[in-house]
Amino acid sequence: MRAVDVIAKKRDGLALTRDEIDFFVQGFTRGEIPDYQVAAWAMAVYLRGMDEAETTALTLSMAHSGKVLDLSSVAPRVLDKHSSGGVGDKTTLVVAPLVASLGLPVGKMSGRGLGFSGGTLDKLEAIPGFRADLTTAEFLAQLKKHGIVVSGQSQELAPADGKLYALRDVTGTVACLPLIASSIMCKKIAAGAQIIVLDVKVGRGAFMKTEADATALAELMVKIGQDVGREVAAVISDMNQPLGNAVGNALEMIEAIETLKGNAPADFIEHCIEVSTQMLLLAGAAMDEHDARGKLHAALADGRALRKFGDWIQAQGGTRRVVEDYSLLPHASIVAEVAAPRDAFIAGIDAEQVGLTSVDLGGGRAKKSDLVDHAVGIVFQRKIGERVARGDPLLTLHANDRAKFDAATARLLAAYEFSETAPKLPPLIHRIIR
Amino acid sequence: MRAVDVIAKKRDGLALTRDEIDFFVQGFTRGEIPDYQVAAWAMAVYLRGMDEAETTALTLSMAHSGKVLDLSSVAPRVLDKHSSGGVGDKTTLVVAPLVASLGLPVGKMSGRGLGFSGGTLDKLEAIPGFRADLTTAEFLAQLKKHGIVVSGQSQELAPADGKLYALRDVTGTVACLPLIASSIMCKKIAAGAQIIVLDVKVGRGAFMKTEADATALAELMVKIGQDVGREVAAVISDMNQPLGNAVGNALEMIEAIETLKGNAPADFIEHCIEVSTQMLLLAGAAMDEHDARGKLHAALADGRALRKFGDWIQAQGGTRRVVEDYSLLPHASIVAEVAAPRDAFIAGIDAEQVGLTSVDLGGGRAKKSDLVDHAVGIVFQRKIGERVARGDPLLTLHANDRAKFDAATARLLAAYEFSETAPKLPPLIHRIIR
Repeated sequence: MRAVDVIAKKRDGLALTRDEIDFFVQGFTRGEIPDYQVAAWAMAVYLRGMDEAETTALTLSMAHSGKVLDLSSVAPRVLDKHSSGGVGDKTTLVVAPLVASLGLPVGKMSGRGLGFSGGTLDKLEAIPGFRADLTTAEFLAQLKKHGIVVSGQSQELAPADGKLYALRDVTGTVACLPLIASSIMCKKIAAGAQIIVLDVKVGRGAFMKTEADATALAELMVKIGQDVGREVAAVISDMNQPLGNAVGNALEMIEAIETLKGNAPADFIEHCIEVSTQMLLLAGAAMDEHDARGKLHAALADGRALRKFGDWIQAQGGTRRVVEDYSLLPHASIVAEVAAPRDAFIAGIDAEQVGLTSVDLGGGRAKKSDLVDHAVGIVFQRKIGERVARGDPLLTLHANDRAKFDAATARLLAAYEFSETAPKLPPLIHRIIR
Repeated sequence: MRAVDVIAKKRDGLALTRDEIDFFVQGFTRGEIPDYQVAAWAMAVYLRGMDEAETTALTLSMAHSGKVLDLSSVAPRVLDKHSSGGVGDKTTLVVAPLVASLGLPVGKMSGRGLGFSGGTLDKLEAIPGFRADLTTAEFLAQLKKHGIVVSGQSQELAPADGKLYALRDVTGTVACLPLIASSIMCKKIAAGAQIIVLDVKVGRGAFMKTEADATALAELMVKIGQDVGREVAAVISDMNQPLGNAVGNALEMIEAIETLKGNAPADFIEHCIEVSTQMLLLAGAAMDEHDARGKLHAALADGRALRKFGDWIQAQGGTRRVVEDYSLLPHASIVAEVAAPRDAFIAGIDAEQVGLTSVDLGGGRAKKSDLVDHAVGIVFQRKIGERVARGDPLLTLHANDRAKFDAATARLLAAYEFSETAPKLPPLIHRIIR
């Protein structure tokens, strides 16, 4: 088999066999197929597409390009969740301990923020001492002992995906459904969980801008997961405005802890309950949605979820006292409100612009090597649908630099859309795919 | 400007500007844009195409990636011809001295054979002492003194094309009209001739298998050349069977000399006259086609063309006596006839298979680094349309290895198509494009 023939076959719009895909992926991983051939192939895939069988084969091949974790020594059915990336998306910080507090093991490998999208690991690392990069042995041991672990993606898992993604990033082949779906799913499969709930974001602050695109991605990922024997469901959730009120690492951590204490923004707790419900249903831990919601609210109300959060943070080296004392988290030197410029309804808050503002403040990364300032960020006081009078506080801005504060103020105000009439509220959950 | 944005624009089917193309080509030539980005771009061009303006911009940019020869010190209007590659195509060996013998300067950079297609330089190098790789100064001096020169492509000309072609070869992006046209034309433009006749082959032994494809390529190249101020015409000529009777370097050299002496296969001399006629017409050296043909036949009949051939060979270090004494050329140790297996009309001789047989015998190159045996080859005694009886000689095979001789015999017989009825003869010249 020759790489050029595999490229030409895809170029001509033909479906590749599992053997051809495996030859290509493993050859690339071992460095035998050079970047330029993979780049041409990726462009052919972008323009010609891949069917479900090809995408599943690609996913499996990338998963098997490195170690595939076997979690069966810990539990036969470990749970995982994955977000396609959004702004203010601190869902894992709540869902993982909430579900784990019901006795279901949650073992997750997570990512860091890049571009407008935040990352769970950065939020966790706002806590002094927290270790996000566990060894595989530590990951397994903690999962066994505490039933909850969230760690950075091991370099040993799905190395083909890392190489391919780096190449796609510089060759205009990122926005390609089969490549996106296989990139996400190969890591989920390599990380070993049997039950996976995908949280696919849609809207201005998501990679998928339309419900049709998000649905197509979610359906494809669910099929891939099911094809390889995992139990998978997907939640299509809204990202037209930031999720919850806080955007920024320490600020989101506080909001997550407050949510576990019962003081949540309405949209955020509903979103967490929906994702958790799907996890319980897949795991067979609830009879139906009503039963699942009841169990989850009980775990929040009686403090089990918050205690599990504390166990989790402590197990990974973090300061457990952060739950009671937010002053242990980094805080910004400049904290000030931004006021509404006019009397109006808030009709839109462009989540992508909010995410980019957070990056500008230092809270995220424009490129992978950037350092993150955990203290900075934004806390919204009003969201879409609310009416404000001129001078009312719209949000509180947390910054460590006056020039950046001013620039962020201007950028955030420009991200708002105001209207004279009450706007249509975006749905929180667009649909569930199982 | 970023390379990834140029790739994405072409990926989305938009036309690139001259600036974008120039940024890309020059960046690639200087090594600032890596192979993998160019590979993705080439695949996007393959699948999305390029319009005439883009193709012209690409051609000019590749031409200007290195030195562009200025031949005006030699003559204001130097002539060139180019063949898209075929089997038994020794046209340059006749056309160059024939046209030059009429006082029109012919300055041409030529290529070597690769795959089933032979190369003019290999044929010239069958002559002892002949130097195909002249310096630019030698090229210009000989053109000035003798009005005829054929040399290998200088490494200084159109380096972007060499780099891009090497990449296309391994990324499945060779068979792409704008990339083929710009690759050919950038070298023609860099080599400096003002008048260019393109000989685009069509059929089994050509890169373009259909008349529609060959016509599209020819029209595009003519337009590109005219867009940049050159006078260009194209001849679409048949390559369903080998051109002339001889295939193989020394054997084709003998056939070319015999043609200059007036002893030509009918198809070959007609083809040479047609190409030469177009050169004379573009140069304004004949009133019309009839006038051109008269002048060309006169130069053949009175020995001017043959003398010019001798001058040319001598000027480039070759043994001029080869014109009278073919024993100075390399000759094969095994020379034997292959007989017709049955009574029938010859309905087809697959030129690509003939070309590949010549490579198998050692007369061509499967890969660039292969050494060429100038002695081996095939001389056809019967061609399409002729009737043979079982046992009649079909061809004479020249080999230097018994096993290769046997393999070639089998391959050649399999390349024949026989029929009970007289077949339709393929046209020699399909069309002229000016």
